[in-house]
Amino acid sequence: MLQFRFIKASLLASKILTHSSINFCRGVPNCKGFRILRSQMGSFSTSSQSSKFLFRQLFEKDSSTYTYLLADVSHPEKPALLIDPVDKTVERDLSLIQELGLKLIYAMNTHVHADHVTGTGLIKGKVPGVKSVISKASGSKADLLVEQGDKIYFGDLFLEVRSTPGHTLGCITYVTGDGSDQPQPKMAFTGDALLIRGCGRTDFQGGSSEQLYNSVHSQIFTLPKDTLIYPAHDYKGFSVSTVGEETLYNPRLTKDEETFKNIMTNLNLSYPKMMDIAVPANLVCGIQSKA
Amino acid sequence: MLQFRFIKASLLASKILTHSSINFCRGVPNCKGFRILRSQMGSFSTSSQSSKFLFRQLFEKDSSTYTYLLADVSHPEKPALLIDPVDKTVERDLSLIQELGLKLIYAMNTHVHADHVTGTGLIKGKVPGVKSVISKASGSKADLLVEQGDKIYFGDLFLEVRSTPGHTLGCITYVTGDGSDQPQPKMAFTGDALLIRGCGRTDFQGGSSEQLYNSVHSQIFTLPKDTLIYPAHDYKGFSVSTVGEETLYNPRLTKDEETFKNIMTNLNLSYPKMMDIAVPANLVCGIQSKA
Repeated sequence: MLQFRFIKASLLASKILTHSSINFCRGVPNCKGFRILRSQMGSFSTSSQSSKFLFRQLFEKDSSTYTYLLADVSHPEKPALLIDPVDKTVERDLSLIQELGLKLIYAMNTHVHADHVTGTGLIKGKVPGVKSVISKASGSKADLLVEQGDKIYFGDLFLEVRSTPGHTLGCITYVTGDGSDQPQPKMAFTGDALLIRGCGRTDFQGGSSEQLYNSVHSQIFTLPKDTLIYPAHDYKGFSVSTVGEETLYNPRLTKDEETFKNIMTNLNLSYPKMMDIAVPANLVCGIQSKA
Repeated sequence: MLQFRFIKASLLASKILTHSSINFCRGVPNCKGFRILRSQMGSFSTSSQSSKFLFRQLFEKDSSTYTYLLADVSHPEKPALLIDPVDKTVERDLSLIQELGLKLIYAMNTHVHADHVTGTGLIKGKVPGVKSVISKASGSKADLLVEQGDKIYFGDLFLEVRSTPGHTLGCITYVTGDGSDQPQPKMAFTGDALLIRGCGRTDFQGGSSEQLYNSVHSQIFTLPKDTLIYPAHDYKGFSVSTVGEETLYNPRLTKDEETFKNIMTNLNLSYPKMMDIAVPANLVCGIQSKA
């Protein structure tokens, strides 16, 4: 029987969500706790079903949303998580997870989406034991409310939470862990904070162009240059970028802060057609009120 | 000045297209010719801008076509190739290639597409020196007409041609090379021969369900189980599969040959809406007649 435990912030310097064990590292820099480092796990193959790390990028065409499946397939339980699942494609995602023999443990969101209904609630109804994850700052209901520095373990792999508000007040970026036993190069799941050659709008849901600028520059552009950027959406058919590329070629975020704020103020975007349905639903894991 | 040479089949046991050097291996098994093997290139990171191999999967939404960009970024010239470019997204692809500092040398097709116009002709008009590549069996015009066993070098990396007819008479699959200096796991660009949990139709353009069955079983399912399958299309939002997965879960090609032929005979698909425009154009690299 596996344990799913959530260690409270009051107990640890940074919270750690772990699939099968708990790592106690109270404020000790670079502490590895009692977890065994698996040096043989140094070789990762992104986008592949390698013997260590499985990664799949999945696309929902109507909202141009990317859902990400990550799993530690070297762990006996093959624990897996989904980032930004969409209600319309839950059946596809769960079917793939079943075929690959994975055990889904987390259904996570980068933020409260305004353009589609999250699949989190549906997944929880279909797969007992799955925990929903979103940021505490989002004001949403979920099983686990995370914040800056929290670690989310799936097997021997983990994601670290970086707070990247600005598109919404509660936006977070999930970044693969430090260490040679974690995917190389690093991967950052940036939600709508940083898109490929773009970024999310900042004119509703507690958005702030000043905050977004600072979030991207302090929390994402400081990652290694070869860090892979996997956004929540792409509208032009790109699937991945890197920190190095975006620091050179992002047409908005390479500008100075004042220019960026002016760009964001003058986008003149229309009201998202799904917003009035999606946002209330997504505040409660995508389960819409039957009232 | 780099040389682009095309070695005729009559000279070599298998033709080799090479960016900066020629490999003479007349029928010698496992011959490496005079090419220097770069042992430090053993580590590849699929989908990443690693120091060795750059790979990008690009999507064209109207026809659900995947275009693939591959480059050897450890080579001084950063030679690159595009597989199955689409006319509508040529500007996007060339802009990305320019930003990444790559030198595009080949614009390749897996077959004569019926659902979109290839970008090959447009690319040749915009980037001098780019060679178009398609199979000899396709009956198309192109700079390089390839067949079973041919090798297409870009820097120190290469793709090998496998003949996989059945969707059309001239379908080929490009497979990354053998050797520890080539991408691991292997990658197979299967065009429409093998799709994720599906396959291309077989009812026009010299298609044959019997031939397709044999092509996939003899040329693709015989690759290592962890070989990544990158098809020309996906309509459900999948981006990649593996040989292992398709041999287990492909709903058509896991059946016996007779059942497969019955499935393909009874698909009752409508006539492709782009066919009368796309096929004539694609027989001449996508450049439509002005007559």
